[in-house]
Amino acid sequence: MATDKANYAISGETPLSFGEAVEKARTLLQESGYGVLSEIDVQAKLKEKLDIEREPYLILGACNPALANQGLNAEPELGTLLPCNVVIYEQEGRTRVAAVEPGTMLSVVGNKELEPIAEQVRSDLSRVVEELAKG
Amino acid sequence: MATDKANYAISGETPLSFGEAVEKARTLLQESGYGVLSEIDVQAKLKEKLDIEREPYLILGACNPALANQGLNAEPELGTLLPCNVVIYEQEGRTRVAAVEPGTMLSVVGNKELEPIAEQVRSDLSRVVEELAKG
Repeated sequence: MATDKANYAISGETPLSFGEAVEKARTLLQESGYGVLSEIDVQAKLKEKLDIEREPYLILGACNPALANQGLNAEPELGTLLPCNVVIYEQEGRTRVAAVEPGTMLSVVGNKELEPIAEQVRSDLSRVVEELAKG
Repeated sequence: MATDKANYAISGETPLSFGEAVEKARTLLQESGYGVLSEIDVQAKLKEKLDIEREPYLILGACNPALANQGLNAEPELGTLLPCNVVIYEQEGRTRVAAVEPGTMLSVVGNKELEPIAEQVRSDLSRVVEELAKG
């Protein structure tokens, strides 16, 4: 299944269930050298805080330590934009996945030293989304 | 002490120690209606993964549930850019704080419905940085 490339997200649909997609995303990220440093269950959090019902929506904060370290050396306040999120969510019963587009996000920083890092992360996260889209 | 406004971060120096600044940031965020949904100890993580020594550097992922819900209703893949980070770090023995500039970050989305949300978050996070800069 083809993936769509929006301005700020690399996204696609997957034939997997939400739970299967979450597990596969974790495995793919780990295989690519990205640890999941944060995890936010948006559905549960909004139910708890606002008593609002939403479809399943999980934010995984992914980070490759070596690339993060390079990025922080080049740009000390880069942490305001880290980690790189991979989102898995349901929309009208379908499972979708979206990763932040690092090139777009880091373009706001305007530091050329970040460009090769953004390109590597873009390549890695695109592959994760593409693999998930295959099912 | 004045705060600096960079392109992608609202940042400033604080006379507080790193630990004091972290505690005050938590309190200020809570008072402003922002929960801390993620917390990444970058110094510890890079030591663990790469055996690299860095100065203290903490990423707090802050989120106002009502504003996040509005944002997600307007833009389903907004989760790729959430939560809004507030970073506290040491640099050559001084403590600095930086919050993501929501207006800049959300400008990459190009959805006008997000503008009032970005403006509210910008105002709230600016106040947090300003209060920390006071010590």
